[in-house]
Amino acid sequence: PDRLMISPYIPCCRYVSKAAAKTQMEFEYDGPSMKTEVPGPRSKELTKQLGEMQNVGAINFFCNYEESRGNYLVDVDGNRMLDYRHLLHPYWLSAFVNRPALGIMPPENFPEKLSESLLSVAPSGMSRVQTMACGSCSNENAYKAMFIWYRNKERGHNIPSDEDMSSCMINQSPGCPDLSILSFMGGFHGRTMGCLATTHSKAIHKLDVPSFDWPIAPFPKLKYPLEEFKRENAQEEARCLEEVEDLIVQWRQKGRPVAGIVIEPIQAEGGDNHATPDFFKKLRNIARKHGSAFHVDEVQTGGGATGKFWAHEHWGMDDPADIVSFSKKMLTGGFYHKDELQAYRIFNTWMGDPSKNLFLAEVLNVIRRENLLEEVTRSGKTLLQGLYQLQDQYPNMLSSARGQGTFCAIDIRDDATRNSIILKARDKGVLLGGCGERSIRFRPALVFKEYHVHMFLNVFSDVLAEHN
Amino acid sequence: PDRLMISPYIPCCRYVSKAAAKTQMEFEYDGPSMKTEVPGPRSKELTKQLGEMQNVGAINFFCNYEESRGNYLVDVDGNRMLDYRHLLHPYWLSAFVNRPALGIMPPENFPEKLSESLLSVAPSGMSRVQTMACGSCSNENAYKAMFIWYRNKERGHNIPSDEDMSSCMINQSPGCPDLSILSFMGGFHGRTMGCLATTHSKAIHKLDVPSFDWPIAPFPKLKYPLEEFKRENAQEEARCLEEVEDLIVQWRQKGRPVAGIVIEPIQAEGGDNHATPDFFKKLRNIARKHGSAFHVDEVQTGGGATGKFWAHEHWGMDDPADIVSFSKKMLTGGFYHKDELQAYRIFNTWMGDPSKNLFLAEVLNVIRRENLLEEVTRSGKTLLQGLYQLQDQYPNMLSSARGQGTFCAIDIRDDATRNSIILKARDKGVLLGGCGERSIRFRPALVFKEYHVHMFLNVFSDVLAEHN
Repeated sequence: PDRLMISPYIPCCRYVSKAAAKTQMEFEYDGPSMKTEVPGPRSKELTKQLGEMQNVGAINFFCNYEESRGNYLVDVDGNRMLDYRHLLHPYWLSAFVNRPALGIMPPENFPEKLSESLLSVAPSGMSRVQTMACGSCSNENAYKAMFIWYRNKERGHNIPSDEDMSSCMINQSPGCPDLSILSFMGGFHGRTMGCLATTHSKAIHKLDVPSFDWPIAPFPKLKYPLEEFKRENAQEEARCLEEVEDLIVQWRQKGRPVAGIVIEPIQAEGGDNHATPDFFKKLRNIARKHGSAFHVDEVQTGGGATGKFWAHEHWGMDDPADIVSFSKKMLTGGFYHKDELQAYRIFNTWMGDPSKNLFLAEVLNVIRRENLLEEVTRSGKTLLQGLYQLQDQYPNMLSSARGQGTFCAIDIRDDATRNSIILKARDKGVLLGGCGERSIRFRPALVFKEYHVHMFLNVFSDVLAEHN
Repeated sequence: PDRLMISPYIPCCRYVSKAAAKTQMEFEYDGPSMKTEVPGPRSKELTKQLGEMQNVGAINFFCNYEESRGNYLVDVDGNRMLDYRHLLHPYWLSAFVNRPALGIMPPENFPEKLSESLLSVAPSGMSRVQTMACGSCSNENAYKAMFIWYRNKERGHNIPSDEDMSSCMINQSPGCPDLSILSFMGGFHGRTMGCLATTHSKAIHKLDVPSFDWPIAPFPKLKYPLEEFKRENAQEEARCLEEVEDLIVQWRQKGRPVAGIVIEPIQAEGGDNHATPDFFKKLRNIARKHGSAFHVDEVQTGGGATGKFWAHEHWGMDDPADIVSFSKKMLTGGFYHKDELQAYRIFNTWMGDPSKNLFLAEVLNVIRRENLLEEVTRSGKTLLQGLYQLQDQYPNMLSSARGQGTFCAIDIRDDATRNSIILKARDKGVLLGGCGERSIRFRPALVFKEYHVHMFLNVFSDVLAEHN
């Protein structure tokens, strides 16, 4: 009965019965046992490895959670310590359900699992990643990293003054500076209060919640298919970019400089609004020119649905972003960042959940083995082609079919018809979702193949015929 | 091979090998199959059940995740639907690693598991709970619930005006109102931007992050043991309560009314600062008198370490709070709330992680079966008694021993000595943590028994002797 405990980091576990629990309860080590200084050589080695991927300033040592039990924590060097700060594994059972404090005492295989999972798909130019528990936390902490980076740049070093330290305790500047994040109308970046100040997709998300005076730029309203309206679209994008620069200057003048710009590669909640690679390239240059960080929010678009692992890879840039945040399809939240946005002060208790990295590593294996990104590209083309045909067939009902990979959408005549179509499709066994004011969005799984597309188009066509 | 998929909601799973994956990949249903309207009778029944515990406004139907596979989602009424909005289970493997969107399509056993876990330990006066992914999200969303409640009270109904709807989209009042949360100096409530505006424990948490102009009251600085300094302590508490009322009036006058008051039953990060039940009773009355919600943050104190499941139960009140937030020991984040703080608009994608409820139910079984709260009370008394003795023995080094259950702390002469003691104890195999400016805090597991206390006191005594 002394080995009933099973690591939560291996996707293999078995049910520990209530009867067994009692027995297990009795087993415990008889006292501390120290083998090396702490941190010992193995902990130091692992800290060094992990330091190449993320901030390790708060790590005490790495834990062997399989050997730890009851009141004793065993580290990776075999030191067994009476744990008087048993914050996160309060009961013996917790070895099974453990959520370790990743920032302080990560498990031994954490650097390896991080390499196999998140770092194996790191966006161009980024070798560091910080995991978080959800999408909103990911963006909140990315904003904090940009604010800290911006203030260090302003100071010329990273040593705060006494005034910084005392004023921040009472929420006042310069310690809590009047900095801002520039966002776009129609954007969605989450629902915690920092994120919410950059979210502008639906009133109902924001209503009644205090916010910040931060600049909001127009997102281009383009005509689809993009390639058929190149000239008008370029004009619209130029207008929006000009407004972005104006806002950056205005907010600097009113004492709330723009520390960062946040944008989605495709505005998802806001109605599947696309922009061209040229727009994003120029926006990235504007950010650089004005000393603002450039944050690409891939919470919705990341993970392969656009036919590339990251939607921003479609822009074809070597240096597309300073920060890329993710969640949803990635199974864990978090953000990649450039070295200079070192997030030494980004910290919380859980810092994500390591079991998710392991699951993600398996998911990535499947994506690679099954060439799912190619599959998505193929299915997406078929889907978009089908939507174009239906749009020609029902010009009064459908418009603006658009998409990248299977990340597609189409506009419906009006909100009521849209909702009716979604319900009718569900009655016929097809689950669709809405976005924006009158769009239907398509978000199939990566294993959605061409024959699924045909199956869908048949049902969709029937439903449309009923509404014509 | 058609039943390899295993529900993530049963604490029993086995490793699915890469070889098996390929086979599994091929298996899929051959098309949709509808048995009832959607939501069907079973979904409706479960929605009604869950509606008694939390907001169900966004739920479409309940899912049978065991039967769902590939591109098909099967609901609890046996309807099999082609899933075109496969947001959260992108690959076949995801049946294994699934993180369902709890707000929209929860699994069948979710209401039952919620009853067995979180609701079985609901604080007095509260029958509703909302789960969240982490402690910061829990507090952020609790604040949002208080703001929404306050604004509905101001309006006299919950229908926003057109001006509310349009102004909130650009972060302006009245849609994004100038409301505030009153917090206490020394408090810690998390690190996302709303929480951070109420956190005042260490400058390093807040530095460089923009904040809100919200009122900050002094937390009583009491003398320990509390019962030996009743008169001075009562005076200090009265001073702080007076300041709270002054701040509420001032902030109302400057157009930023206090929608809620947030407080920890014991300020943990801030240095294990206690206050008396009398203080909390009067504070709760002040909140009621001024129409502010009263939010008790039990993220650190909840889960049994004080000898009661919730630390605020020590106050002995029938109606102690409007909101109680939790995380850490509870394995999932979230908050309990009163009916009138109905959080219809509190929403996000994951809304926590249902596997944690199941683990929590098991943890609660162990706590009950092993009478761990009594154990904690017993061990805590022995520990505090031991700290008192050491404090008498080393009056120049130790002071202010204090605690509830095993949630104990003691002040050390100075910061340097404190840190040296922590390191020396670690070398002898005892893990301690610091809090506040010069305190050591004790946070053992609930299974920390009296003989562990003696073992600890022996080591601690040796370490102190070395520092004398």
